[in-house]
Amino acid sequence: MEKSFNNRLLDKCNQVNNRLCIGLDIDPDKLSDNISDLKSIEAFTKEIIDATIDFCPVYKPNFAFYERFGSKGFVLLENIVAYIGDRAITIADAKRGDIGNTSRHYADSIFNQFGFDSVTISPYMGSDAIVPFAEDETKGVFVLCLTSNSSAKDFQFITENDSQLYEVVSDKTNSLNKHNNLGLVVGATNKQQMEALREKNSLPWLIPGIGAQGGDLETSIKVGNHNGIGIVNVSRSVIYAGNGSIDEIHKSALNYTQQIRSFL
Amino acid sequence: MEKSFNNRLLDKCNQVNNRLCIGLDIDPDKLSDNISDLKSIEAFTKEIIDATIDFCPVYKPNFAFYERFGSKGFVLLENIVAYIGDRAITIADAKRGDIGNTSRHYADSIFNQFGFDSVTISPYMGSDAIVPFAEDETKGVFVLCLTSNSSAKDFQFITENDSQLYEVVSDKTNSLNKHNNLGLVVGATNKQQMEALREKNSLPWLIPGIGAQGGDLETSIKVGNHNGIGIVNVSRSVIYAGNGSIDEIHKSALNYTQQIRSFL
Repeated sequence: MEKSFNNRLLDKCNQVNNRLCIGLDIDPDKLSDNISDLKSIEAFTKEIIDATIDFCPVYKPNFAFYERFGSKGFVLLENIVAYIGDRAITIADAKRGDIGNTSRHYADSIFNQFGFDSVTISPYMGSDAIVPFAEDETKGVFVLCLTSNSSAKDFQFITENDSQLYEVVSDKTNSLNKHNNLGLVVGATNKQQMEALREKNSLPWLIPGIGAQGGDLETSIKVGNHNGIGIVNVSRSVIYAGNGSIDEIHKSALNYTQQIRSFL
Repeated sequence: MEKSFNNRLLDKCNQVNNRLCIGLDIDPDKLSDNISDLKSIEAFTKEIIDATIDFCPVYKPNFAFYERFGSKGFVLLENIVAYIGDRAITIADAKRGDIGNTSRHYADSIFNQFGFDSVTISPYMGSDAIVPFAEDETKGVFVLCLTSNSSAKDFQFITENDSQLYEVVSDKTNSLNKHNNLGLVVGATNKQQMEALREKNSLPWLIPGIGAQGGDLETSIKVGNHNGIGIVNVSRSVIYAGNGSIDEIHKSALNYTQQIRSFL
């Protein structure tokens, strides 16, 4: 029998004793002139993977950074996912969310066409946007819950009967987790909110907002890995370290890894 | 001075006296064996456009139906958008929604790389997910508000101080409409909800759920075009008419058009 996604994620993270996810979101405008065309971006991304895959269990490309190059960017994305292969867990940070019939096509695309292990989902349209992605127990779904961006408060804190929207999303995701393959996106936001949510939710957490966005690593690791597994995503502070120096990228990722291990 | 998106949309709809949007969501599994590979899907989609563009003001490809073919599907999408050109208004039904920095890359992709006139947005992350798409007044943004799928109720009806989430999204979108280029996605759902929302919101509405999904055309057109403009999206009942017979597709689109005109 094949393993559920959540067990695969846990095994991979335990194998390398790490909870780091590297966001492969290369913006050539932020790097030296040597990295500008798609060929050099592909070579650079592969170098980042080579320099970190011995200890990094999860990689997460955000689709925006590939789609901006049109169809050629999706060739790049296909190549990157294939390059990682089964050496690490991949998350398609695509924040999909549509009606059931359409979600099934997206799931087909992300899991079968691109070959990702998991995907991020925006829950506004309800369970129709989530369930079609979770039919294969070996593939995972991270549902946006409490995000760390400044306008998260616009809608996520709307409160009915003492429950805020993000808590309702957490409870709903819990109830839909029939195949042990659902998780949540919980931003590195304030400690009390994270702690209160963790008490009620033991699904895997993907925690963005560390590094350039200012989230606290210690809180994220300690709260995220209490009553469940929590992986922290770092993008800019790793991939732009030393303006694209692979040595500095390796050092930065290893530094995060050592901190994570000390907090576990 | 260039026209705002909302004025362009209104002008185009008035030019052909229509409020129809055709959803270009070709699923070859639903059609005859002649339409199966990407080349035949492209030819078929262009035939649909040719048969309807004299009277249809808006076309909306849903990204899932292109992305399922991987990078090659995005070449198809680029070709379709280029084929429509400035003969009609195009909506990228991509339901994007991400933090500000990422949203800017998506906007660049959808407006500059693919060449769309407008995009659909999922609002869960708040204004960060909307504003970066609205910087160019000639480009439009339709924000998911009240959707017509069965699980819309999971989150959209959460109520604080007598306002349901979808009403809060409507008000927020109103307040962000600085350049006359924001609109809402309001599904063809129950008449009372649509009427109450229309009283408070005069932005353009994109109304899905007509046809295969069972929504009422008369209600959608009458409510949607009171105190604003409302365009109805029809996909399956047009593009699969007569199992891909262009004659039947033309007839079906024209039939919707004649009904729409009678209700205006």
